[in-house]
This record gives sequence, C-alpha cells and structure tokens, in this order.
Amino acid sequence: MGFIGLGVMGSNLTMNLVDHGYRVACFDLDQNKVESILAKDASERAENTEPRVEGCSSYTELLSKLKAPHLIIISVPAGDPVDHVCNHLIDAGIHADDIVVDTGNSLWTDSVAREEQYKGKFIFFSTAVSGGEVGARFGPSLMPSGNPYAWTRIEPVLKAIAAKVDPETGKPLESHTPGQPVLEGEPCATYIGPVGAGHYVKMVHNGIEYADMQLICETYHVMREALHMAPAEIAEVFRRWNEGKLNSYLMEISAEVLEQMDPETQQPLVDVILDRAGQKGTGLWTAVSALQVGSPAQTITSAVFARSISSLKDERVAASKVLSGPDAPSFSDDEKMSIINKLEQALYCSKICAYAQGFQLMAMAGKEHGWTLEFGEIAKIWRAGCIIRAVFLQSISQAYENNEDLANLLLDPFFAEQITQYQADWRESIAQATLAGVPCPAMMSALSYYDSYRTAVLPANLLQGQRDYFGAHTYQRVDKPAGKKYHIEWSDPARPQTAIKK
Amino acid sequence: MGFIGLGVMGSNLTMNLVDHGYRVACFDLDQNKVESILAKDASERAENTEPRVEGCSSYTELLSKLKAPHLIIISVPAGDPVDHVCNHLIDAGIHADDIVVDTGNSLWTDSVAREEQYKGKFIFFSTAVSGGEVGARFGPSLMPSGNPYAWTRIEPVLKAIAAKVDPETGKPLESHTPGQPVLEGEPCATYIGPVGAGHYVKMVHNGIEYADMQLICETYHVMREALHMAPAEIAEVFRRWNEGKLNSYLMEISAEVLEQMDPETQQPLVDVILDRAGQKGTGLWTAVSALQVGSPAQTITSAVFARSISSLKDERVAASKVLSGPDAPSFSDDEKMSIINKLEQALYCSKICAYAQGFQLMAMAGKEHGWTLEFGEIAKIWRAGCIIRAVFLQSISQAYENNEDLANLLLDPFFAEQITQYQADWRESIAQATLAGVPCPAMMSALSYYDSYRTAVLPANLLQGQRDYFGAHTYQRVDKPAGKKYHIEWSDPARPQTAIKK
Repeated sequence: MGFIGLGVMGSNLTMNLVDHGYRVACFDLDQNKVESILAKDASERAENTEPRVEGCSSYTELLSKLKAPHLIIISVPAGDPVDHVCNHLIDAGIHADDIVVDTGNSLWTDSVAREEQYKGKFIFFSTAVSGGEVGARFGPSLMPSGNPYAWTRIEPVLKAIAAKVDPETGKPLESHTPGQPVLEGEPCATYIGPVGAGHYVKMVHNGIEYADMQLICETYHVMREALHMAPAEIAEVFRRWNEGKLNSYLMEISAEVLEQMDPETQQPLVDVILDRAGQKGTGLWTAVSALQVGSPAQTITSAVFARSISSLKDERVAASKVLSGPDAPSFSDDEKMSIINKLEQALYCSKICAYAQGFQLMAMAGKEHGWTLEFGEIAKIWRAGCIIRAVFLQSISQAYENNEDLANLLLDPFFAEQITQYQADWRESIAQATLAGVPCPAMMSALSYYDSYRTAVLPANLLQGQRDYFGAHTYQRVDKPAGKKYHIEWSDPARPQTAIKK
Repeated sequence: MGFIGLGVMGSNLTMNLVDHGYRVACFDLDQNKVESILAKDASERAENTEPRVEGCSSYTELLSKLKAPHLIIISVPAGDPVDHVCNHLIDAGIHADDIVVDTGNSLWTDSVAREEQYKGKFIFFSTAVSGGEVGARFGPSLMPSGNPYAWTRIEPVLKAIAAKVDPETGKPLESHTPGQPVLEGEPCATYIGPVGAGHYVKMVHNGIEYADMQLICETYHVMREALHMAPAEIAEVFRRWNEGKLNSYLMEISAEVLEQMDPETQQPLVDVILDRAGQKGTGLWTAVSALQVGSPAQTITSAVFARSISSLKDERVAASKVLSGPDAPSFSDDEKMSIINKLEQALYCSKICAYAQGFQLMAMAGKEHGWTLEFGEIAKIWRAGCIIRAVFLQSISQAYENNEDLANLLLDPFFAEQITQYQADWRESIAQATLAGVPCPAMMSALSYYDSYRTAVLPANLLQGQRDYFGAHTYQRVDKPAGKKYHIEWSDPARPQTAIKK
C-alpha cells in the first residue's frame, strides 16, 4: 500500500503497518522525512532481511509501485493539505476504484464534502485516529467511516494496527513490541458508518475526554483547597482509586503528574505549571454540536468553559483579592478520610453522567444525520488505544449489548443501580464543595443532568407560561393531544384561552 | 419617511411613529395590510385631522412620496425577504445616500454582509427591536448600529418611539397613550456601534433573558418540590420579591402566570401547561458565540440545555420511574420561611452572575470585532421596553458609569458587596437543593462561575500536566516569562524537562 505524509503520526503509523507485515511505499514532500523512515526501518528490522518500506520521490512514482486497486493512506494536517494531496493523486493518474484513507484530524463535515467532491476520481474514505504518537506507533483506537466496499478492503489493515483488548477483562493488552509476535485480542477498530461519522464519533470522544479530565481536576481541587492535601498525598489517593472502579489511563497519568517533582525548583511540578488550559477545538466543536442538535451535554460544555475561565489568569488573580468566599473549613483526620471516600463516589457518578451525555449526543446526532451507530462497538474500541481508555467502557459496552435501543446510559440497570448506591455521597460532596467555596462546575452540571433527566415534570411549564405571556409563543397542554397549541390573552382582563391553529 | 412591511411588528411601529408626529408612507406586498393601517390611522387620529399614513402600491410610488435623502424603515422576516426588499428598492431607483433601516430579527453577521453588499447603492443600517408587539406599539428598547452619518439622521426618530425611563429612579415610565402628550424621559435607544453590533447586543440580551427565566423557574421548582408549596403561594412570594431588589418584568409576569387558573379545569394553569420549552435560537446563538470567543457564559448555556432536556418529555417520564432520588425532605413552617428567604438571595446572586456573563461576553466579542461598546448605555436602554427590564439594570449602568473599564460586573464594589452579604444564603440554598434532588443547573453554574472567577489558582495546572503527558501539548511555568513553553519527556524514566521553542 502507499503512505503519504511522514510527520510524527504518519511515520509511526507506517512503522506500525510494517510491524504487522505490510510493505509500504512512502512519500512526503520533504525528502528528508522519506530518508528518515528508510533509516528507521533499517534500524528496526532483523538483519539480512528485505527493507519493508520503499521511498518515493513523487506521487507518480508512488502510484507506480502499488498494485491496482491502489490503497493509499494519508497523514497530513487537516484542511487544505488533504485536498492538495488528493488533487496531486488525480494528476498522477489515480483510478476511480482506488481508495484514499484520510487519517488526519479533519472536521467531520469536511470529510462528507470530500467524498462527494472526489466521487468518480477515487474513493475517499476517512478514519479518525486516537491515541497520539504512542498510539499510532503501537496501537491506536480507530474510528473508520465511508464507503462500505472500501471498508472490506481496509478492514484487515486497520484491525492489524489497532490497539488490542483482552476480551475477557476488557483491559488493554500490552503494546505490541516490534520484532515480537503480533498480539491476539479484540482490535480497537470498528466500522462506524458513512463518511464523516467516524470523525464525529472521535469528536465526541474528545468532548468526553474534556469532561473526564475536568472532573478529575475538580476532585483534586477539593482535596487541595478544602482538605489542604499535598500533591503527593493526592497522587496516592488517585493510585488507590485507580485500583477500583475508577481505573483508567487518565487516573493513572493524573497520579503520575501529581507525583512529579520539578527538576528546577524541587517543588511539586503541578505547582509551577501555569493554570491556563489550552484547547485545540474538538471539545468546543462537541459543545456547539450538542447545542445545535439539542442534546444536553452540559458537563462536556462546562469543561470547555472551565478551560476558558482558566485562561483569564490575570483577571482571576485580581478578582481573588476583591471577591470574598467562605472561610476555609477545617476537618479532623477521620472527617478527611470520609470526605475523600465520598469524593470517589462523586467522581464516579459524575463520570457516568458525562459518558451518558456523550452517548446521548451521538444518538441524537446520528438520528439527524441518518447514521446507525453501534454504541456497544464504539465503547469497545475505546477500551484501549485512546485517551479515555478504561475498564469502565467494558460496562458501557455491556449496557448496549444488553439493550441496543437503550435511550440513555443512565437507564441501564447496572448504572442506575450504581448511582442509587452512591448518590448520597455524590450529593454530600457537592454540598460540601458549595459551602467551602471550591468551584465544581462539571460535577454540579453532572448532578443537575441526572436530577433533570429523572424529573417527570420540570419547571419548563412556568417557562412556557412566561413565553406565552410576553411573546405569545403559545403552550401545549398535558391533557390535550401533542402539538395542539394554546394561548391566553394576557392583556385582556378576562384572560380567555384560545386554541391556536398550527 | 417610508415604511415597508406591515405585519404585527411593522404596523405597530408605524402607529408608534405617527403618534410621535411623523408622516409615514407605507407599503406591503399584501395590499390588505396597507388598507388595514389606513383604517387604523383613521380610527385613532383626532376627528377632522389629516391622515398620518399614506398607502403605496409599489416600491416606486413609495420612493416618489419621500423627500431625498430617503429614510425607509423595513420590518420583514429575517433572511431572504430583507434582500428581496433591498433589491426592489434598487430597481425602483433608490439613491446612494438614502438610508434603509432593517428592524427585523436578523442574524448579526447577515447585517454586516448586507452593509458591504449594498455599499454604493444605498446605506444599509440595522436596529434590533426588543419588546414584542406591545413594545413596538408603545415603546420598544432599540439597539441601532451602522454608519454613524446615517445615525444622526435616524437618531431623533428612534429616540422618539423608544420606551422612556425616569432618569431618577431608573423605572420605566408608563407607556405612551395615543392622543396624549408625548412622554419625557430617557429614551431606550442608543447608538451601539458598527453595523451588526446592535443585533449582537440584542442576541446577548436574549441569552441573559434565557438565564433569568430559568433561574426564576428553578426557585419555583425548589419551592414546589422541596417545600410542597402551591402555585398561588409561590406567586405571593414572587410578588413580595418583586417589591425589592428582584423587581423586574419577568418576576412580575411569573407571579401572574402562577396565579392564573385554567378556565377549562379550574386547576392552576401552570399544572396543565406541558413542560416542554420551545426556543427560537437566540439563546443557542449566544451560547455558541460564547464558546467561540472563549467567554464562560455557562449560566446562559445551562439555560439553553435546560430547555433541551425539558423537550425530552417522554424520556424523562420513563426515567422518573427508573432512576432513584433522595427522599423528599420535610420542613417546619419556620424552616420553610427561612428557606424561602435564602432562596431570594440565591436568585439575586445567581442573577448578578448571569448578567456579569452577558456583559463579559459582549466585552470579549466587542474586542474581537473591534466594537467599542458603551456598557453603561446598553444597561440603560434595557431598563424599559425589553423583556429583562428591571431596576437592577440601573445598578449595572451605574457600575459602568463609575468605571467604564470595569473588567467584570462582579468587581464593581456594589455588586461585590452584595454577593459578600448574601453568598452564605446562596450556598445553603444550592446545598439544600442538591441534597433534596431538585435540579438547579443555572443556579449551580452561576455559583461555580463566581467561585472559579475568584480563584487565583485553578486546577488547570493539573490539566496542563495531563495534556503534556498524553499529547506533548506543553505547559507554561508560573516562574518563567509568559508564552515560554516546557515539556517533560514522560516516557523517559529520568523525565527531563525541556524548554520548547515557540
């Protein structure tokens, strides 16, 4: 097969491919990068064996080295570079039944447009890749989408290079070691749907990742500010949590970050890191999409806003000198231990809600775009390779396997029972943080999501009354057929009610 | 002047204009509407006086009746109809120095595009109109923006028809009664800035309106669910609050809605209104804009999501049977009264935060778009005519008059002191709702906005550590110059820190 674009991701994906027995013809506009991958292959392959990659100096040469129908994977920055490569492939004589697989971080609507744009010239297929550099090299989580015929051709390739999971435990298998036998296990790659669907699902993955990270940060913040714990002490708590139901990659690395000392000052590194969070846009896209499809992904959105407010560092420092808060509480060691134990349940319940929101968003967006998403499969391919990998996803996958029409993750008997069991601790943790003045926007939004979702009658009835009062927006009645609209003549002293024709 | 588009809003604006001494030439594609406005004028003007409106049957006739430079106000649905009218005016011979004022609910970016598009043909000017039908007829709040030369011509007209405020008390003057002397007072119309700015400000007004309504609904919900109060009892509480610092149009109409009995069933109307909130998009646009400019308008956004979740009525009813909550608390009469009093302060503090978010969003968007927005003036024109009208806006206007560079409303000494005084009640109310299982998403998001904003060091330092760990996204250091980036080689056992060139 062919591979175009040999940056960090591209060269790692290429080496991952050759580890799994593929021969790859490579091209990059920068010939130094082509030289590098040849050198890398030479250094990693067994002595006296054939090179597994071949360097090319043009698009035409690349096509000439492949057998028809050609399969070409590209890894270039999202946006114009993708079209640049596609157009050069057309000039070089690519055929209508050749397949081009975009592995970049493309916006999902761009992928939809490209499939249409290149129809008749070649088959444009896209796959989202999660797991960063290390994932690309040793096993990413892959979310492919596009033409189903193309998928049959691509499937064995992507399944070979994907991260693998132990089907029994749902835990990631150790990364594949170059030169060692290939791992057996369930591959983290499944066909998501029509072109664009894969990148959409990856976008929601990142939105969930934002929420998960923010929730961990909030529990850290409570322990730090309300319990006056040192970073290393908190790391220890995270390590303990990582043994249980909160086991996840993010929990593991959070502990490692908190343990890390700054080589320069010998202080905990976290205390010298500036508290201004960066963002690359995928969390924001998820939140905007949630607003647009009307899916209440409020915990994901509050994580995006938490990053916004963190970046107003100078304002916050100034405000901290002017705006008052409650006095810092103090706790006995026993109380402290009890609060920590409650926080674990609070984080767990909040996390369930954040994931429920992500899956609900995919369901509502899928409906809007005509995608049939297999949520059990999606949860499965997130068990390894990607940032939110966790045993927790095994339970989500089971929930959808037990009931593929599950309207919301919260309604799954296992999760419903878990929240029943732990919600008192969740509520008390939030109440305590509220009284102590430690901000917990994501955790609070998760609880209000749960409480709103389980409320049969919300105060939106008053809201509809307000809207009818000032704007004649009409309301429906609980005792009349759905869709029938009513209006009160509020300015008339007798206030008659009229039924409005649609 | 000329007026095109005689729907409910258009004909009410026209009648408002003639009340203030203007002669108006009117046109609508529907000649019945032209006849109606002639009849309306005839029925309302003093006997034996000249007609104040003139009907036209074409764009050409309309132009022929006006003195150059022409001033033409249009009130047609947002979108294509606006361009339809503009193009017909060009065909009819409108001049380059004539002014067309769009009063519709246009998306602000459309107005920006139109000014450019019609440059050289005529001057396109836009004004947002708030206050619904009644406002249009008797005094709206107006947010005009566009060419400053055009504004000098339009200013006296818009100030004449706008709502008026008593400059001493900040309270709306009674609506102008047709035939009576024109009201003196501060008009709710001020020049906002370049074209589009007025519609942007109106959009944020609506976002704030969403938050304000949702906050009122949440206090209603707590009284209803946790205190088991009847709608009429809650109406009484709202009436009492309306006498004090929460005095506002929305509080007033909420009480009236809650008192309203259903003529059909003799139950409280609110109990027969279906709790599915509608939305027309402006709240959603505000939330999306907040995400895009990175302004943490989380209370406005949570109000949008509260409407989304309300519309999942069937799911909620099903979930209410499956998902558990805490037992309903019970309170003595004294406790009940104390909780109600705390709720008043909770609503007030939350409201301050919601408005602070709206003004912060306008400030950040203004910076991005190069608008110099006068926040004192904007608060002033919202004191009457529009949905969020309230005495409260007088305090906001004073805050910006005292310090026009105020970074955030929360930092104004008056508001900072108010929150200091009432925050214990605010926190206790939220803690109580949390434990009682009553969802308060907007109120919680307001508190976490306050607590985040006044926190000098947020846990975004841990978050940046996580991001550097899994994605090499780098971090900055608190002890090094801003912008300098660092990275830890996390996979290296020695974990050296390297400084990254920008």
